[in-house]
Amino acid sequence: MGKGRLEAFSDGVFAIIITIMVLELKVPHHAEWSDLIHLSPVFLSYVLSFVYVGIYWNNHHHLLHATKSVTGGILWANLFLLFWLSLVPFVTDWMGENHFAQVPVICYGIVLIMCGVAYSILVRLLIKHHGEESLLAHAMGSDMKGKLSVGIYGVAIALSFVHPWWAAGLYGAVALIWLIPDRRIERKLSGSETSV
Amino acid sequence: MGKGRLEAFSDGVFAIIITIMVLELKVPHHAEWSDLIHLSPVFLSYVLSFVYVGIYWNNHHHLLHATKSVTGGILWANLFLLFWLSLVPFVTDWMGENHFAQVPVICYGIVLIMCGVAYSILVRLLIKHHGEESLLAHAMGSDMKGKLSVGIYGVAIALSFVHPWWAAGLYGAVALIWLIPDRRIERKLSGSETSV
Amino acid sequence: MGKGRLEAFSDGVFAIIITIMVLELKVPHHAEWSDLIHLSPVFLSYVLSFVYVGIYWNNHHHLLHATKSVTGGILWANLFLLFWLSLVPFVTDWMGENHFAQVPVICYGIVLIMCGVAYSILVRLLIKHHGEESLLAHAMGSDMKGKLSVGIYGVAIALSFVHPWWAAGLYGAVALIWLIPDRRIERKLSGSETSV
Amino acid sequence: MGKGRLEAFSDGVFAIIITIMVLELKVPHHAEWSDLIHLSPVFLSYVLSFVYVGIYWNNHHHLLHATKSVTGGILWANLFLLFWLSLVPFVTDWMGENHFAQVPVICYGIVLIMCGVAYSILVRLLIKHHGEESLLAHAMGSDMKGKLSVGIYGVAIALSFVHPWWAAGLYGAVALIWLIPDRRIERKLSGSETSV
Repeated sequence: MGKGRLEAFSDGVFAIIITIMVLELKVPHHAEWSDLIHLSPVFLSYVLSFVYVGIYWNNHHHLLHATKSVTGGILWANLFLLFWLSLVPFVTDWMGENHFAQVPVICYGIVLIMCGVAYSILVRLLIKHHGEESLLAHAMGSDMKGKLSVGIYGVAIALSFVHPWWAAGLYGAVALIWLIPDRRIERKLSGSETSV
Repeated sequence: MGKGRLEAFSDGVFAIIITIMVLELKVPHHAEWSDLIHLSPVFLSYVLSFVYVGIYWNNHHHLLHATKSVTGGILWANLFLLFWLSLVPFVTDWMGENHFAQVPVICYGIVLIMCGVAYSILVRLLIKHHGEESLLAHAMGSDMKGKLSVGIYGVAIALSFVHPWWAAGLYGAVALIWLIPDRRIERKLSGSETSV
Repeated sequence: MGKGRLEAFSDGVFAIIITIMVLELKVPHHAEWSDLIHLSPVFLSYVLSFVYVGIYWNNHHHLLHATKSVTGGILWANLFLLFWLSLVPFVTDWMGENHFAQVPVICYGIVLIMCGVAYSILVRLLIKHHGEESLLAHAMGSDMKGKLSVGIYGVAIALSFVHPWWAAGLYGAVALIWLIPDRRIERKLSGSETSV
Repeated sequence: MGKGRLEAFSDGVFAIIITIMVLELKVPHHAEWSDLIHLSPVFLSYVLSFVYVGIYWNNHHHLLHATKSVTGGILWANLFLLFWLSLVPFVTDWMGENHFAQVPVICYGIVLIMCGVAYSILVRLLIKHHGEESLLAHAMGSDMKGKLSVGIYGVAIALSFVHPWWAAGLYGAVALIWLIPDRRIERKLSGSETSV
């Protein structure tokens, strides 16, 4: 089964998730600079989530680039990932509107963990489908960065009991780690091309 | 006429329907766990509908994969299906906000029945266009699962007069049946490829 | 210049326009059948507009199917059409919420007229680009149906001064005329294929 | 790495940004012509932003048409552009609802400047990737029009301290300059084709 429509549908959902978050930036009723300052936690929360959804789209792009075909199970693993990503606008807004209060910050972390878990299920199913000796399997390696991220989210949730801003800081730090695109696949792919 | 834009447009509508439903998860004004618990019927309703729209996208994907070309009538049958699917966010939200009260639960069932009917009209037009002896016609067979689903929705609506949760349970049960992707087409397609 | 991205972008806008209209179907706060009956003018208005946007997507699909390449001017003519179509959700909701009152009904007609005008500008630019002797030019012919529709919208606006429902009825009648897909292009295309 | 999904994702985001702006055109609760007149600043603001997003889509289309492949950095430069474009609906609505008051008008200008800066970063990365001697580099030239636009936005922000409508007028003037599509690339591309 081809991967064309999986990419098209996922691109659509990614595009909508990343864009509808801006609808939560409720327009203030007055036109002063102070009105904008009141929005700053919501805006900060928006920027963080925009970067996260951008990272997932970027990695998803790289991952499927190395994919040749998909199965029914992979379609559902992809939908499971999109489900958790679809909750990002909700927790983003809740966290922003409550000025990074503890409970929404924890929920944001839980959604990030579930996105990470869903992504690694998708990776594992793709590797299983293409074979452990495939280019894709080599390119993904042991996925240290993915496992590390989920660990940091866990630490962040624990630290939110000290102060929620510690957790928010860690979410931002993980985003920075990932802002560097997944060069593993790029390198392996170009490596294999030059070796031909 | 090619099927490319039909797929692209449908993917767009599917992606939007599945994503705008999350806009109905209204962000609570406070930041306690109890605020989240109050949202649980809306969330449950969202999960059910996400799975249903996912199922339809998945089956639509399989169906059009086995399709070679489309006619004007098929374009309209597809729009008729998308129309009923577009009502899913409305009934989802109504059912969730009213904690699975009887009237919204019945309406949810009616929309599911109409989606099922619209899907089978689309299947029938595609089979008619490709011929009764086509791979597509063989792959769809007698569509027992589709007919059974519409029957169960009818039973669910009847049972909603006893208690609406019986109906909701049956909607969930049908979703579970369909979570197994439509292997009929997959099997036939791969079968015909090996026999060549 | 290829037509691929023009189609992809237009499909996206069509998909969003046709889907966000359902967001205007505000979920009632109670769960009785009577709540649904109060929504009926909004629902009727939604159905009418869904059919109209579906018709435009369908005709746009046929039109670009017969198109080989596009120019900068054609991109802008297409955006001009999408602009007027983007106002359809606004007038749809205004007309529905005010139970087909005169002023919104007139505005709905004006938007329909502008969509029709924008579509015929797009057609004219495409014909000019492909040449008066092209398949596209022959397929479009004198565009009687398009001119007739704009005329009927004008009559409908005039009749809205007698009673707005006359206008609404005429809008519905034009939609019915167009529900029959644009067989002109289909016929010419298949005719030219058989003659080769 | 291919440019297919970059185009598909960007088209999705462009399509959503240009369409959700109409959601801010809140439907008046009454059905008189005067209700429509009250909406006129919001509508004017919508038209301006529709044209701007259309211009960016158009130029993006031309730019990527001349692109052969992309890198991870280019994906992020593109997301940076989409981020600033995603703020357009917010400033559009804020400016419209406050009848072009000074602070929102300044913010609108800042978003336009950032979009211009992000676009030229994207152009520079694409030129660097394709080489200074590439068709793309020649086609973009010194990007006078882009630099001029950012300069005019700066003047507009300064003039908003005299009167905000001066700024709004300049935003409109820049849009008019750009409404003429980017013929530089078109000409160079067709020029190089005829010289082959």
